[in-house]
Amino acid sequence: MANLYIALLHFPMRDRKGRVVATAITSIDIPDIARTARTYGVKRYFVVTPLPSQRMIAERLRDFWLEEEDWPTRREALALVVVREDLEGCYEEIAREEGEEPLLLGTTARADVPYPRLSWEEARKAIRERPTLILFGTGHGMTEELLSACDALLPPVRAKAEYNHLSVRAAVAIILDRLKGEDDDGNG
Amino acid sequence: MANLYIALLHFPMRDRKGRVVATAITSIDIPDIARTARTYGVKRYFVVTPLPSQRMIAERLRDFWLEEEDWPTRREALALVVVREDLEGCYEEIAREEGEEPLLLGTTARADVPYPRLSWEEARKAIRERPTLILFGTGHGMTEELLSACDALLPPVRAKAEYNHLSVRAAVAIILDRLKGEDDDGNG
Repeated sequence: MANLYIALLHFPMRDRKGRVVATAITSIDIPDIARTARTYGVKRYFVVTPLPSQRMIAERLRDFWLEEEDWPTRREALALVVVREDLEGCYEEIAREEGEEPLLLGTTARADVPYPRLSWEEARKAIRERPTLILFGTGHGMTEELLSACDALLPPVRAKAEYNHLSVRAAVAIILDRLKGEDDDGNG
Repeated sequence: MANLYIALLHFPMRDRKGRVVATAITSIDIPDIARTARTYGVKRYFVVTPLPSQRMIAERLRDFWLEEEDWPTRREALALVVVREDLEGCYEEIAREEGEEPLLLGTTARADVPYPRLSWEEARKAIRERPTLILFGTGHGMTEELLSACDALLPPVRAKAEYNHLSVRAAVAIILDRLKGEDDDGNG
């Protein structure tokens, strides 16, 4: 099984009106997504923002839990978190450590984007075979520029209800479960 | 398809040392779980605590979003939230409206509990056929008393990694996706 990485990106994102922005760190994203990442065997969880003051906030939130002696399961999850300035740096860091460039998979709740998509089955196979970095957006989602730079996109998570406004915390949990969860009766 | 209800319980819960406590409301649980509930077609999301001051906090958090004119998708999700004093009241409310008592399903990350369990497949079938209320715990999980009062428990969510410390927000998302999500290639 190849290593899986995830990145939570804060730039370049769209805001409610479609403008390109750097979103603010949401504090609960640090421990929640770290715990999900740890549950599903993710190798590293990149929190990415170009704003130095926001990186400092993210690091403080992580360090709060890392220094908490009495809560080892929380600390174990937060140890996966690294804070970085840009996606390019994360990509190069993985390529350097793995000795090959990672597969770059994007995520979006939108069904109408013109970029290549994998099925869930294809994605499960792909991540077994090659180091992979999955990108998650914040605010109102990744810009076209960012989506188009991915090797492929995962399918949108959409249940029967015609409502696809999950929090990024819920989306990461569902997507990692679909990619790496157990089958119906507890078999891996 | 019968109606599905979920309840986030704050009493009686275990704390880190196994003592029985009423946990505090976590503010992000209100909108996050409401959005997940809305995505998966849940009929109502009960936030349950015996503490009047905590119920007031939960209602204010909900009402903040209900009064927000500019964010209709958020408002649509928060409209599912009702705040209640105890589980018995939720159960009776559902029984009264549905004309039959709901199936009561518990959830726990623990694998070692001696109560009856459904497989995911059995649970998917059961919720199609009968109104169902799924209980989610907070703090360090539901007491034995509460688990034993359920008709059955769902399987623990556990991926291959031997770490099962998901946030309740992530657990609700994964469980609803397993029960009501689409199949691999987008079919309901």
